[in-house]
Amino acid sequence: MRTIYSEDHQLHDGLLEPDGDGWAPSVECPARANNVVAAILERKLGDSIPPRSYGDDKLTTVHDPDYVNFLSLAWSEWIAAGEKGSNAKPFAFVGAGMRYADTRNIHGRLGRYSFGSNAPLVAGSWQAIRRSAEVGLTGADLILEGERFAFSACRPPGHHATTAQCGGYCYLNNTALAAQSLIHAGMDRVAVLDVDYHHGNGTQSIFYERDDVLTLSLHADPALEYPYFLGFKDEQGSGPGEGFNRNYPLPFGTDWKAYSEPLHDALKHIQDFFPSAVVVALGLDTFAGDPISYFEILAEDYISMGQRIGALNLPTLVVLEGGYALDAIGENTVNFLEGIENA
Amino acid sequence: MRTIYSEDHQLHDGLLEPDGDGWAPSVECPARANNVVAAILERKLGDSIPPRSYGDDKLTTVHDPDYVNFLSLAWSEWIAAGEKGSNAKPFAFVGAGMRYADTRNIHGRLGRYSFGSNAPLVAGSWQAIRRSAEVGLTGADLILEGERFAFSACRPPGHHATTAQCGGYCYLNNTALAAQSLIHAGMDRVAVLDVDYHHGNGTQSIFYERDDVLTLSLHADPALEYPYFLGFKDEQGSGPGEGFNRNYPLPFGTDWKAYSEPLHDALKHIQDFFPSAVVVALGLDTFAGDPISYFEILAEDYISMGQRIGALNLPTLVVLEGGYALDAIGENTVNFLEGIENA
Repeated sequence: MRTIYSEDHQLHDGLLEPDGDGWAPSVECPARANNVVAAILERKLGDSIPPRSYGDDKLTTVHDPDYVNFLSLAWSEWIAAGEKGSNAKPFAFVGAGMRYADTRNIHGRLGRYSFGSNAPLVAGSWQAIRRSAEVGLTGADLILEGERFAFSACRPPGHHATTAQCGGYCYLNNTALAAQSLIHAGMDRVAVLDVDYHHGNGTQSIFYERDDVLTLSLHADPALEYPYFLGFKDEQGSGPGEGFNRNYPLPFGTDWKAYSEPLHDALKHIQDFFPSAVVVALGLDTFAGDPISYFEILAEDYISMGQRIGALNLPTLVVLEGGYALDAIGENTVNFLEGIENA
Repeated sequence: MRTIYSEDHQLHDGLLEPDGDGWAPSVECPARANNVVAAILERKLGDSIPPRSYGDDKLTTVHDPDYVNFLSLAWSEWIAAGEKGSNAKPFAFVGAGMRYADTRNIHGRLGRYSFGSNAPLVAGSWQAIRRSAEVGLTGADLILEGERFAFSACRPPGHHATTAQCGGYCYLNNTALAAQSLIHAGMDRVAVLDVDYHHGNGTQSIFYERDDVLTLSLHADPALEYPYFLGFKDEQGSGPGEGFNRNYPLPFGTDWKAYSEPLHDALKHIQDFFPSAVVVALGLDTFAGDPISYFEILAEDYISMGQRIGALNLPTLVVLEGGYALDAIGENTVNFLEGIENA
């Protein structure tokens, strides 16, 4: 299996999050992707290739042009406004009954285009974000060119990003861009299976009214866990998309035994959908040792998880999403990928 | 003129806001109200009396019961969750297309009930918030009992707070609660004039579909300034409230000369409305020396502003909102109040 990877993710570094009455380095850090790629090389999973280049028109197949424009300019607007912080992040959001107004203030623009303060922008973020999307898009192209498997080692991750808002460490939705690219190239149906610990709210919302992309997500119950405001069981799609979204909210403490049952159900729905390809949004934050999560999946379980998905016997693109246990993310990722290849 | 004031606002202390890559004490601090009350005593404006007590049913005339319940419990939920920060504040919000879901996680609940991270809760906040609402409600009662003027020295302020969300240093909408109390007691029509530097989005939204409360706000253009997502000129009310909301967005640099023209227009609309009383949301952050604002109103201008409003010759309740120039907020407030009394 080939891995698509860009060193440009290193530019998206120095993210901060609140920690008591101070700030701490974000768990979403370059070491995540570095450790994944190191494990791939060490375990000789296959070649690592750089992403191809794509025009903005490819990004706007999923995202609003105004949003892409905002992401590309936000850091320079932050500096132009005289802001001193190394992390540009919003404090004011569009509340209930407010308008998605076209404000000219950078603080307003950050809030307009975010659903949280946990997707900060630093000086090098845009280059990393754009290349991460291209890592996803290149993966889709490899599948279109006939490869059975491909792994897009994306960073920053993307599955929380919606058409026009960032949040949860995500800016452009790499997974959705890849799935849309497969459809655009002529595939009739594509399934997106999100196994990140957190609900893939962005991916769900992007395809919610469509019947050509089946979206499924297994995740911690949003009544207990981020993103809190989407990912419930009753969200099944709308309009032509009715029945083409499935959520599996799971309790804290879910282990492989408890996980494999809803996974089995999701895979059955994928089979019944007869997709031309599957895109897996791979979060490794279901791991028992993840520092911000409460599932109990073990390292060897990722082999089983990969095997189950590989048994679909479909062209499969795996896109890296979350996972914050730095010492384990590499092994867990390769376990999953080897499982897929050896189903 | 009598002032209603509670020392309990001191409990709402130690608020933090982001400052570069650190945190700084919030400009919304106890010294604001302390300095206002000190100036009132020094200039012998009149007695200061404590607020009366009111039941929760009075708060829910304007706010959702679930929201009031959240505010009363949030700090204990924050502590119960093991959080270490002295300021409970949200990082995740209800984005476009997300649901106002009934999450059980304190971070989710903070986000569900906020439209920004700039309304933090500290250990003593709820007591201060509740008493501030009672300061506003007592002012309304004084007007109902026949006093021509009253001043509710509220802290925390309230005009950004909506039926079910806090933001912009505001939690319960003291001004809206007072106006609603006047209506509830039998007044046919009440006008709310908001002269704070920031748009009174909460007050506007609470009365937006009603024709018995005319809401008017003069403020910095939201295309340039907080709250960014409401306060534009085309917001004129809806349904039965169509025509009963007026916004006057003004440019940075607005001085008294430029301010007095839209004020004249707003006062004319109040006269045409024939209200039984006026509630003034008094922000002193239009002051030239305000540290977070960009208007150029001078200390003596507040006398003129008060005189213009006093010339309406209507029972008038003044409710304290913003204003962050600690050395000047007392003098500016008393200038305004003396202007009203000596119109």
